[in-house]
Amino acid sequence: LGLMEKRQRTAAKDNGDGTALERVKQVQDQLEEINDEAATAVLQIQSSANAKRAPVYESRKTAIASVPGFWKRALMGHPWLADIITDQDECILSYLTELTVEENADVKSGYRIALAFDVNPLFHNSVIEKRLSWHEGGELTMQTTPMSWKPGQDPLALSGDSAVGGGEDKKRSFEQLTVEEGQRLPLFLLTLLNDELHDTEAGDSDEPSAAGAETEAICDAIKDEVWPEPLKYYQDFEDIAPPADDAAP
Amino acid sequence: LGLMEKRQRTAAKDNGDGTALERVKQVQDQLEEINDEAATAVLQIQSSANAKRAPVYESRKTAIASVPGFWKRALMGHPWLADIITDQDECILSYLTELTVEENADVKSGYRIALAFDVNPLFHNSVIEKRLSWHEGGELTMQTTPMSWKPGQDPLALSGDSAVGGGEDKKRSFEQLTVEEGQRLPLFLLTLLNDELHDTEAGDSDEPSAAGAETEAICDAIKDEVWPEPLKYYQDFEDIAPPADDAAP
Repeated sequence: LGLMEKRQRTAAKDNGDGTALERVKQVQDQLEEINDEAATAVLQIQSSANAKRAPVYESRKTAIASVPGFWKRALMGHPWLADIITDQDECILSYLTELTVEENADVKSGYRIALAFDVNPLFHNSVIEKRLSWHEGGELTMQTTPMSWKPGQDPLALSGDSAVGGGEDKKRSFEQLTVEEGQRLPLFLLTLLNDELHDTEAGDSDEPSAAGAETEAICDAIKDEVWPEPLKYYQDFEDIAPPADDAAP
Repeated sequence: LGLMEKRQRTAAKDNGDGTALERVKQVQDQLEEINDEAATAVLQIQSSANAKRAPVYESRKTAIASVPGFWKRALMGHPWLADIITDQDECILSYLTELTVEENADVKSGYRIALAFDVNPLFHNSVIEKRLSWHEGGELTMQTTPMSWKPGQDPLALSGDSAVGGGEDKKRSFEQLTVEEGQRLPLFLLTLLNDELHDTEAGDSDEPSAAGAETEAICDAIKDEVWPEPLKYYQDFEDIAPPADDAAP
């Protein structure tokens, strides 16, 4: 019996770390449960706050409709977006009549941004919608309304050899633009339209592309900053904008 | 009456933008109220989850106490912290017996990290406590238990001219260390101990120092990653650690 006891003790000791770790694991599982509960409760609050905000956002839409150029000025008053908005964007944004952000009901899974435009010289779309979707495992995909460019206005179109072939325009990727072209283009709009989050050229297709990262950053700035507090940026705009007469000497 | 009406209409039109903006402002205030409510509710959930976690963390502490070297291995299994932990840190972390993170009751205002050590050759402190406090306006300050280094062990002490003066050691800042010194020092520990968030040498004292930013990042990694999920990093440790015989050729 004494020997038996001794053997059992030795076994327990040999197994000491394993058992203690098992105990840590069990406690950790309890923590996980509390964390999950809290996370669910936070999601519920966010989703219920979204429901409360919805009608107020509707009233805001009506109020904003009476202030011409409101969203253009709000976007251009955002310190970081202001840096991306080129003269060409500014011209296009003059046709922007409405900006809307809607989070998915299950907040974490994504959101959409909708930009409504007046008749304009570049495209036929009256609304450009951008959807960001986070999938299981955290992967992000983006989807933009197909653009219906007016003839000769698609900045990414390469005129095909129309005399020989069917005259179909070939598309190139946003990344293929040269710097000089970029300076003459609506970079803000093009970045927003870009849906390529990953560098498809690179061997590792999970490699995030620079343009993809910038697109995500623009969308997040619109969703998290401009949309909740447009008035702040609208009012900041005058501080940022150079005086109208500030032409180069 | 017809003229009166016309005048009133003109006045309303002149004042149109101002009034419409006022209306946007009013609606925006309603949104603000909903946001504040939601933020308060989220804080309550976090604080109640913290209360629920507290006793479970106590059980975990007991369970972890039976696994020698648990926290050292968890820290060293963290992919980013592993890169900062030098051989000297590793030696010191062998004396680490307990690691605790406590958030303030009003979660957003700060947290403290406490590291308990066995008797060791470097310092007398049995506990090193690091406090991070966020103040109104978002400013962060840090406070570390004063270190009681054993004679000749303070890595930041410059031996004064003891033959002439009072033999008092002068202190230098963490930033003044040379690279070669850094390689022979417990950089993880020194970075953790550093309380200088701002570059006091620079003219603008609000300029964040590189060391300050790294200290904050270390503390956040401990609070947000190692503390809630130590077992994950503990188990990952073997994947990260080089084989024992992996000496340079």
